[in-house]
Amino acid sequence: MTVTLTDVEAARERLAGVPQVSETPVVESASLGEAVGADVRLKFEHLQKTGSFKPRGAYNTVAELVASDREVERVVAASAGNHAQGVAFAATELGLDATVVMPETAPQTKVDATRGYGATVELIGETFAAATTAARELATDPETAFVHAYDDPAVVAGQGTLGLELLEQVPELDTVVVPVGGGGLIAGVATALRGRGSDARIVGVQAEGAATLPQSLSAGHPVDVDDPDTIADGIATGGVAELTYEVIAEHVDEVVTVSDAEIASATLWLLERAKQLVEGAAATSVAALQSGALETAPSETIVPLLCGGNVDTATLQDVLTRALVDRNQFVTVHVRIDDRPGVLGEIAEIVGDYDTNIRSVRHDRSEAGLPVGKAHLVFRVTTPGNAALEGLLAEIDAAGYTVRRVVPEGASDLPLEGDAIGDSDGGGESQPDNDSVV
Amino acid sequence: MTVTLTDVEAARERLAGVPQVSETPVVESASLGEAVGADVRLKFEHLQKTGSFKPRGAYNTVAELVASDREVERVVAASAGNHAQGVAFAATELGLDATVVMPETAPQTKVDATRGYGATVELIGETFAAATTAARELATDPETAFVHAYDDPAVVAGQGTLGLELLEQVPELDTVVVPVGGGGLIAGVATALRGRGSDARIVGVQAEGAATLPQSLSAGHPVDVDDPDTIADGIATGGVAELTYEVIAEHVDEVVTVSDAEIASATLWLLERAKQLVEGAAATSVAALQSGALETAPSETIVPLLCGGNVDTATLQDVLTRALVDRNQFVTVHVRIDDRPGVLGEIAEIVGDYDTNIRSVRHDRSEAGLPVGKAHLVFRVTTPGNAALEGLLAEIDAAGYTVRRVVPEGASDLPLEGDAIGDSDGGGESQPDNDSVV
Repeated sequence: MTVTLTDVEAARERLAGVPQVSETPVVESASLGEAVGADVRLKFEHLQKTGSFKPRGAYNTVAELVASDREVERVVAASAGNHAQGVAFAATELGLDATVVMPETAPQTKVDATRGYGATVELIGETFAAATTAARELATDPETAFVHAYDDPAVVAGQGTLGLELLEQVPELDTVVVPVGGGGLIAGVATALRGRGSDARIVGVQAEGAATLPQSLSAGHPVDVDDPDTIADGIATGGVAELTYEVIAEHVDEVVTVSDAEIASATLWLLERAKQLVEGAAATSVAALQSGALETAPSETIVPLLCGGNVDTATLQDVLTRALVDRNQFVTVHVRIDDRPGVLGEIAEIVGDYDTNIRSVRHDRSEAGLPVGKAHLVFRVTTPGNAALEGLLAEIDAAGYTVRRVVPEGASDLPLEGDAIGDSDGGGESQPDNDSVV
Repeated sequence: MTVTLTDVEAARERLAGVPQVSETPVVESASLGEAVGADVRLKFEHLQKTGSFKPRGAYNTVAELVASDREVERVVAASAGNHAQGVAFAATELGLDATVVMPETAPQTKVDATRGYGATVELIGETFAAATTAARELATDPETAFVHAYDDPAVVAGQGTLGLELLEQVPELDTVVVPVGGGGLIAGVATALRGRGSDARIVGVQAEGAATLPQSLSAGHPVDVDDPDTIADGIATGGVAELTYEVIAEHVDEVVTVSDAEIASATLWLLERAKQLVEGAAATSVAALQSGALETAPSETIVPLLCGGNVDTATLQDVLTRALVDRNQFVTVHVRIDDRPGVLGEIAEIVGDYDTNIRSVRHDRSEAGLPVGKAHLVFRVTTPGNAALEGLLAEIDAAGYTVRRVVPEGASDLPLEGDAIGDSDGGGESQPDNDSVV
């Protein structure tokens, strides 16, 4: 069982019949290129139908089934996310029923999206493994076919169409950086590139908490991890397949890993600077460059694949909150007051004058050593930045109150710059500009 | 004083010398097209250098100054955002000093971005009008030129290059939807389109709280509003100029307005579905379609201009929070308990089993009628969605506690479905799928 350039080319012909699965843009990132000292182009595959590369493989596989002698009426898949949507889209497009088993903890948006593409969704088990077992049990009758997310030559051949497309869009390609979960995408891309005679460097990137390739390549066979743990849920498969391993071992030049902190940072950079919303799995390809995990040469043309954009809104909000805290835009402020009516209004007015929003406020009368009749007002505020924050702290100070801001996460308190309590506020760190990718 | 196609073509030649200001992609949005019943293509101008269309006009203007007989050494501008970055970039590129006056309340990220492009930033006044007055005072010496954001033929001609580009990218263009603040972009685009003989429908869109064109067109001259109030800060100029008004009155076919709620909804749609981060001003063009403010024909090819992507992270977070609340993913849960040690741990464990994060928890013992020895635990949680929420509420209920969820924002409490307290939880509303724009 293997995959050849001929298979990838056949997949491309099949996909030519479904205009929704179309070529995605490649966009230069001048600022990332400057930062890493190379020519960086981003492959916007997160703009693909269903929000990831998955329909390339899913459509090719289901189309092969339909064209085969087998009388298939229904496809079944297990997936916590993107593969589910790819299979649902492909089956509906080709007139088959689809049932996708998702873990009970799957994000509601992905459940609804999969239903939206016409599949029946069954929520079974708490893990992807449990969902997979249940899905296979649903596929025992002859009219039902199980579609694996990556352990299938037709799936790999379909993902390989991205490689053919990329070679045409960027003929000068020196390096492609490919996120690796089950290995379907990188195996397909490698088959396409090597088949077309390209000796571009092929780099696989994994999340540290879900890395299996370094161990697998050392061992000479796929090695699984039981408990993958990363914010890049799209590549937390726990291992590659025999099929994809063989291609990776033969054609992939390097494998690097990145931490969850590096993935979060890359996600935020892509949002703020490149204006692109991608999921953690896709951000690993940019994280590999930004973290220095991958060495680059000045003249090199590098393409990180942004392979998916299906990120839960709650997850995205956590990333943003972290960023606001890191930049002193989400701050806790303590003000010591006389515990009498009217004081809150006075201070809140000062805060408002600096375009600063109060998110919460409470009175704290329980601090050890606080005299009777005194209290602390504890504000959590969002500010436009350091200038506004320092302005409002100075004005509260000038109004006769003792004020200090508190660094979240249990770090030591940082007093106001110029305040009698201490010397420096430690603020003023640099922030990203709004340069863009084109 | 007017602007002609010849001016726009000259601007395009000047801009050809600065590769950073480059052609931005046009990407079809199948799902938006389906929703409004037309052929919709999005112009990704938010991927332009500096994150908006502004460097087109700013570069053209500064380049004209440099080529003129006047001995200019420095440019001065007033801006709360995108124009500041455009001028800073253009001046640095052309070897001039730049000073930008920004209001004291300008977001830190925009201040830093403007400095990042090489400008000196002065924070003066609390409003854009105050900043403008101060900037003009800085530009009284002969070597210093003031660069207005839109009331300048060179600026309008530069913005017009977007129109030429669009006609080449989408020759079948039927309608272009252009956000209008000061009118520089729409005046430039209209000059380019009409100059090239296109009779495409040109639609201006304004935020309701900052709309001035409807009144201006009725009056037959520019009418200002003193206190523009909208989340689309990029187009909250308070009025168009005489220069831009003349072009608009002659060539613009329709003007529509959209509410802040419609702008927020479009912003979220662009993020979640199109995977694009845009600012409120840019989202107005999509809001005009989604709100029904603009009528469309089935065969029509419509291009909303996504004119900028510089949105403050804190603002973005507010939009996301609103969305999570609306979808029952950010919920308050009340549990009545015996006020004894250990209960919190027991309930928190159930919550965690459903992939639900506790954001805050407090004990409430002050409710009227609550027996002594009883208390309420009040959790604020984020959940993957309705399935998880209903699962954990049922399990807490089965563990013998009285539990109810509370709708935020003071709406009436909605009891748990199947709970003895009431009948239905009112949940289960549909959510967007992860369809994409390509």
